[in-house]
Amino acid sequence: MSLTVVGSIAYDAVTTPFGERERMLGGAATHFALAASFFDEVRVIGPVGDDFDAASWEALQTRGTITDDVERVEGGKTFFWKGEYHDNLNSRETHVTELNVFEQFAPKLSDEAKACDVLFLANILPDLQREVRGQCADARFVAMDSMDLWINIERDSLIETIAGVDCLILNDEELELLTEAPNFVAAANEILQWGPSSVIAKQGKYGAALFTADGYFALPAFPLSSVIDPTGAGDSFAGGFVGYVAAHPDEAISHDLLVRAMVYGTALASFNVEAFGTERVIELTSDEITERVDHLQKMTTFSHTPISLRS
Amino acid sequence: MSLTVVGSIAYDAVTTPFGERERMLGGAATHFALAASFFDEVRVIGPVGDDFDAASWEALQTRGTITDDVERVEGGKTFFWKGEYHDNLNSRETHVTELNVFEQFAPKLSDEAKACDVLFLANILPDLQREVRGQCADARFVAMDSMDLWINIERDSLIETIAGVDCLILNDEELELLTEAPNFVAAANEILQWGPSSVIAKQGKYGAALFTADGYFALPAFPLSSVIDPTGAGDSFAGGFVGYVAAHPDEAISHDLLVRAMVYGTALASFNVEAFGTERVIELTSDEITERVDHLQKMTTFSHTPISLRS
Repeated sequence: MSLTVVGSIAYDAVTTPFGERERMLGGAATHFALAASFFDEVRVIGPVGDDFDAASWEALQTRGTITDDVERVEGGKTFFWKGEYHDNLNSRETHVTELNVFEQFAPKLSDEAKACDVLFLANILPDLQREVRGQCADARFVAMDSMDLWINIERDSLIETIAGVDCLILNDEELELLTEAPNFVAAANEILQWGPSSVIAKQGKYGAALFTADGYFALPAFPLSSVIDPTGAGDSFAGGFVGYVAAHPDEAISHDLLVRAMVYGTALASFNVEAFGTERVIELTSDEITERVDHLQKMTTFSHTPISLRS
Repeated sequence: MSLTVVGSIAYDAVTTPFGERERMLGGAATHFALAASFFDEVRVIGPVGDDFDAASWEALQTRGTITDDVERVEGGKTFFWKGEYHDNLNSRETHVTELNVFEQFAPKLSDEAKACDVLFLANILPDLQREVRGQCADARFVAMDSMDLWINIERDSLIETIAGVDCLILNDEELELLTEAPNFVAAANEILQWGPSSVIAKQGKYGAALFTADGYFALPAFPLSSVIDPTGAGDSFAGGFVGYVAAHPDEAISHDLLVRAMVYGTALASFNVEAFGTERVIELTSDEITERVDHLQKMTTFSHTPISLRS
């Protein structure tokens, strides 16, 4: 079993109503790896500049994540994103996006990375996602994320990329934007006709929903009275979800497996938002994860004793 | 066991992306009664004008709902609301609100209505809700709804009304508006200090969440690929929820009872939005409700076998 992720490794500057960080480790691949490394050995693909410092390398390597495939570009600068959350975290404004080393990024995978059992294509240019997917021909489960930008400017390429994966993980509003369906249920059902055998609609603070040919599963978010920074929550969700699948190499990909994976994705995402950037997940323990999964089950379970209804 | 509801009985004109109705039976008390009447005998309090026609009386009396306390105002016109939904039903615009008979409404309850076991105060002026609540001193469970309008212009009266009920049912954004808390979890927890022993955060297409001193429960909405008209969904939810409680007169009000009630509320709300106004719920059968509750359980259940996590 082996798990490869391709995506951004970044420095983020983030302001929320609850504080700010001027420069912290971020990026989709980083958040994904920190979450997924609880489940399996993760191999990260992505470029960094020579400003990528020792503490960041160490953080990326948490729980044995392999960074041999991280390309260090001499004279380059690491991807930088600066954003601000408003309106009780319900809206996000991007102030700065410096692609830097990502402008010339052409993924070169080692044989070990190519031989992965499970692959996650984090949110990058759909052409790049498809190229990486092609290099990992034997992966038994491939999931991907994307974003509104690519839906708007690279729609055809994105749809081609989606056709080649097993699972599309997207925000519910992006699913609607992509399909022009009136709601995320209709949108997800349509995408199940495009190639993927599973679609996940991420719903932010409300939770997430899974669509497969065999059924539907929805899980509310863990209730938090204090949310500090949502940055990376979707990638932590993907890390828990895809990591769980990777940790079960002997189990066929089924609705039931993906349901259980959703629960771990939800748990990881809930920790992500409790502090800025990677600060909470980097100190997270496996006992805390197990405890949160227990809570998720308690808060969604109900007994159903049929009652006689009037007519 | 007996269940009283006070609230609007109305004619609605509604336009959605999927059609329109120029004049259909509506109002919070109507939607509530149609849903709650599957569980218990409902007694409706509210005014109508002499334009309230025979078909509307008949619809209101579905499944034995008692309309003896519905005040018919001679020469008056029934409450009228005209609204339009945009943006895939995500936003609602009010074009016309004619209070009509509601302008002079002073609730006069019969002895039978006052003697109710369970009371629901649908969304009306908080002063009126409090007056009705005072007249039903022996009710063992009192729930209420409200809206942003009253939070903005009648906040003190609303808070006083909330202090006198057992359960506040409100949209999650209204909970945040009311408490100025940064999210609905913090908001609901604060309101549990104001008097109610339970708070429900309605989340529209995402579902609903229950907060009590004894725990937290969240239930996603039933997945519908076609939603026609959301008008009255919150009141149908309340009807299923409060109706379930009323149908269990020998059971103490507990977290577990309210959890099971949430499931029926969610089921009823999901039918409400499948057609305009009351059109779906009026033809609904008890078998369909039971089947939907079964589905709600299947789509939220997961097995949790502990796995060994890496550290």
